[in-house]
Amino acid sequence: MLKEPLPLGSTIGILGDGQLGRMLSQAASRLGFKVVTFGPDAGSPAAQVSLASKVAAYTDEAVLARLAESCDVITFEFENVPAASLDFLTGRGAVVAPSSKALRITQDRVLEKSFAREAGIGTVDFYEINSLSDLQGVLKSSGLPALLKTRREGYDGKGQVWIKSLEEALAAYDSLNGRPSILEAKASFTREISVVAARGWNGEVKTFPIGENHHVGGILSTTLAPAQVSEAVTAAAHEIARKVLEGLDYVGVLAVELFVLPGDELLLNEIAPRVHNSGHWTQDGCLCDQFEQHIRAVTGWPLGDTSARCTVEMTNLLGPDILEWPTLAAEAQSRLYVYGKDEPRPGRKMGHINRIKA
Amino acid sequence: MLKEPLPLGSTIGILGDGQLGRMLSQAASRLGFKVVTFGPDAGSPAAQVSLASKVAAYTDEAVLARLAESCDVITFEFENVPAASLDFLTGRGAVVAPSSKALRITQDRVLEKSFAREAGIGTVDFYEINSLSDLQGVLKSSGLPALLKTRREGYDGKGQVWIKSLEEALAAYDSLNGRPSILEAKASFTREISVVAARGWNGEVKTFPIGENHHVGGILSTTLAPAQVSEAVTAAAHEIARKVLEGLDYVGVLAVELFVLPGDELLLNEIAPRVHNSGHWTQDGCLCDQFEQHIRAVTGWPLGDTSARCTVEMTNLLGPDILEWPTLAAEAQSRLYVYGKDEPRPGRKMGHINRIKA
Repeated sequence: MLKEPLPLGSTIGILGDGQLGRMLSQAASRLGFKVVTFGPDAGSPAAQVSLASKVAAYTDEAVLARLAESCDVITFEFENVPAASLDFLTGRGAVVAPSSKALRITQDRVLEKSFAREAGIGTVDFYEINSLSDLQGVLKSSGLPALLKTRREGYDGKGQVWIKSLEEALAAYDSLNGRPSILEAKASFTREISVVAARGWNGEVKTFPIGENHHVGGILSTTLAPAQVSEAVTAAAHEIARKVLEGLDYVGVLAVELFVLPGDELLLNEIAPRVHNSGHWTQDGCLCDQFEQHIRAVTGWPLGDTSARCTVEMTNLLGPDILEWPTLAAEAQSRLYVYGKDEPRPGRKMGHINRIKA
Repeated sequence: MLKEPLPLGSTIGILGDGQLGRMLSQAASRLGFKVVTFGPDAGSPAAQVSLASKVAAYTDEAVLARLAESCDVITFEFENVPAASLDFLTGRGAVVAPSSKALRITQDRVLEKSFAREAGIGTVDFYEINSLSDLQGVLKSSGLPALLKTRREGYDGKGQVWIKSLEEALAAYDSLNGRPSILEAKASFTREISVVAARGWNGEVKTFPIGENHHVGGILSTTLAPAQVSEAVTAAAHEIARKVLEGLDYVGVLAVELFVLPGDELLLNEIAPRVHNSGHWTQDGCLCDQFEQHIRAVTGWPLGDTSARCTVEMTNLLGPDILEWPTLAAEAQSRLYVYGKDEPRPGRKMGHINRIKA
């Protein structure tokens, strides 16, 4: 762990080289840090704006060892980095945040929800599925429809399938190729919100205002923040974020996605152990955005102010949406972010726009 | 010239590799451009955050030729880049903005003030000085004290000397090593303000709110913006900026430093043909800051909104000021910018902080 803040000019390693790494790198540079990115792709969004980049598989121990030597702290932007790679880095003397423990728990939907329940946080009912007969047995008592997901990986709606009748069990199970899975009961939620929050090495916690999220086809489409929710919902969501941060002994920024049920009960949907798409609004809504906050947290700097300057609607630019840039760039009360990716494949996150609403 | 906006993923070359290049590069990346910096120093502030950097003298034609080939537009962050280098780039088919014509005029204090007078903009009285006898002759009629400056180069109070009596003429002349000079009458100003403004390839002009500047020892210390000046002063300052932009057929962002005389008459002090220290407040005071505005202008994108979101006081962090970063980083209503330079030599611009005032 870090006992003193890292001085100016220290080097931060980032595992993962997508847009989150890009925006983390830009925030780190603004504070005078040097950044080395590590990921599989040359010319990646993060590498384009960083001092140096190592192009290698996340399991390449020779390159990981060099990273451990050259960085004052190492973090990640991607929750599917192997936890074993973090352990390897730690074994080589590197300071790593968040920890491999936090990553291991949040990489596995069964461990994640079990952790939440133990921390006193509500979740939908869920069942561990290791075989087709597990699934068939559980479906009899779980109620329908229910959602079958792989325990690990999968994002933006990938690796999950709705089961509406008992007859669909076999096809659903097959579609996940027999991977260890989780069956989740359907949550009858009225809204989806998220909290982005940070915790420092010294245990200091700061939470950003709540965002309300709208998904289309399983992919986040827009976040409106601060969301129009009651003070009670805000307080409850912030308390959940605090429990998660403290329960995981977490250092850095994470996002907690929550379902709001009728009557304002909150259920934890998912924990993202990293900066999160639903926190992009903070770039224009707060003086310290989620990226700077993460850098502050992992380097032992004081956490920044998380109060909202205004209301922001963040809209993802997916695939060909980005081709509308001439129109988007001409909007007055907005700010455009482009990730430096070449091909606007359908559904690919190419950029986002933050529109100031009030 | 550019007739169409440059598409996403185009490459921008930046001559100059200091903090202005760094912040231009970061703004360009945010809009999805790739950046190549060109300057004499390896590991420069701008190179640290850019896709590529060429380390060479500004006159190195082989490297300039490669830059011309690889960039869709080339700009500069440093007014002492040789205008001949811009001509060389243009000769190799590169699109360059601002133009070498604008650079030549603003590099030379006599040409600059003569241009201003011809454009109907007031300046202090000034005299071209090519010899000691020129100086002695002029001092008899100019009034004292007067300011002797080199015609070219010199910034942050370097290359200039006050003459308070006729007896000081020889020493003053010698201190500039016989370089072509300009003698300027003293302006009895009450305030120093500046306007940062932009013009696109299509002639569109946008001006930022006025900043009020305080210098200490010839170096900018703080800018408060929007400045508390009358609407008439704002309008007059914006009109001067427009005349300068149009008179120079300028493409990009520039800054015009103005003296406010008793009675609110404005005199032009200096034109900076680039983004300017007195425009750093726009990073937190406007949705489109001066760096993004410059990138928009030179790439043919629509100019961004220049209205102020709040009042900002920008304070430069010179030399050892930067060592106060633990305190500065803990301020709530502020944002810290660090330039990635190693040695905090006295007077060196190491970073700045924007404090939100209202």
